[in-house]
Amino acid sequence: MYEVEVKVRADHDAVRDQLDELDAERVGAVVQEDTYYDAPHRDFAATDEALRIRRERPADGDAFEARVTYKGPLVDDASKTREEFETGVADGETMADVLDGLGFEPAATVRKERERYAVDGYVVTLDSVDGLGEFVEVETETDEAGVAAAREGAFDLLDRLGLDPDDGIRTSYLGLLLE
Amino acid sequence: MYEVEVKVRADHDAVRDQLDELDAERVGAVVQEDTYYDAPHRDFAATDEALRIRRERPADGDAFEARVTYKGPLVDDASKTREEFETGVADGETMADVLDGLGFEPAATVRKERERYAVDGYVVTLDSVDGLGEFVEVETETDEAGVAAAREGAFDLLDRLGLDPDDGIRTSYLGLLLE
Repeated sequence: MYEVEVKVRADHDAVRDQLDELDAERVGAVVQEDTYYDAPHRDFAATDEALRIRRERPADGDAFEARVTYKGPLVDDASKTREEFETGVADGETMADVLDGLGFEPAATVRKERERYAVDGYVVTLDSVDGLGEFVEVETETDEAGVAAAREGAFDLLDRLGLDPDDGIRTSYLGLLLE
Repeated sequence: MYEVEVKVRADHDAVRDQLDELDAERVGAVVQEDTYYDAPHRDFAATDEALRIRRERPADGDAFEARVTYKGPLVDDASKTREEFETGVADGETMADVLDGLGFEPAATVRKERERYAVDGYVVTLDSVDGLGEFVEVETETDEAGVAAAREGAFDLLDRLGLDPDDGIRTSYLGLLLE
């Protein structure tokens, strides 16, 4: 499975108006606290991999769920396409203990509120990131053969939202925070 | 949390008779399939650590649950005492993909049926291990200050089960299979 994702800085109020015109369906809103890890045997900044524990709760709730995620190196720079493996874990703190035991160390934490909309097979996410500001992500999943078409569709949707695909930011929130 | 555990080879039929005399409570029986991993940056055989994905189902059922476990180096050789972190994962196959992405490689798989009894604060487990035969484990959990007393109690219980604490096997099933 490949995740095709394009991200731009954008004022959320203006994008919400466009989403309304496109009859986008509001899926929900969540708060995410992501802890990213450094590896003991590789420089993830150099290999462009990531290992993360995500704690997530509904924006209007207080019960966190945890997941562990590995993101492989980028296979397509323009759209931030990469292979990703993610599964839920019963206890995020214990998962952190496992990684600590193996020699992985917490590198940084990213906290954001995410408001999600569904449009034409894509998920549009309005992100408010602590310390960084407002962003919009357009995202979908595809097999390897569908990557080019999925990226083209993401660019087209950004255009219909009044945003410029050429403004695409390939740097992760983690990367932006560390800059 | 420390796990105090003593393991001996033992004929299960004889031990079941002793468990009956001790009014042990049969807790249940499960099938476990454990995959152990090699690390890309450490020799776990040398550091005496372990990383494992366990898939477990009731002996009379077919729904597997998965957990990931890290075991730290032994802190007490006589009783196999070590620090251990374990949490459930929603999808064992995806957790395997995460470990594979990080460079951990499956080293061996251990399959066993485990029948558990509760006696005087200890868990007595009758293990039938594919390729190895029958074993009995006596086990409890304690904080660091309680390790010595917990070990003494485990030896006493083994004695009451007709088994000899001096027959204690410190090698893991994985280690025995690899011998």
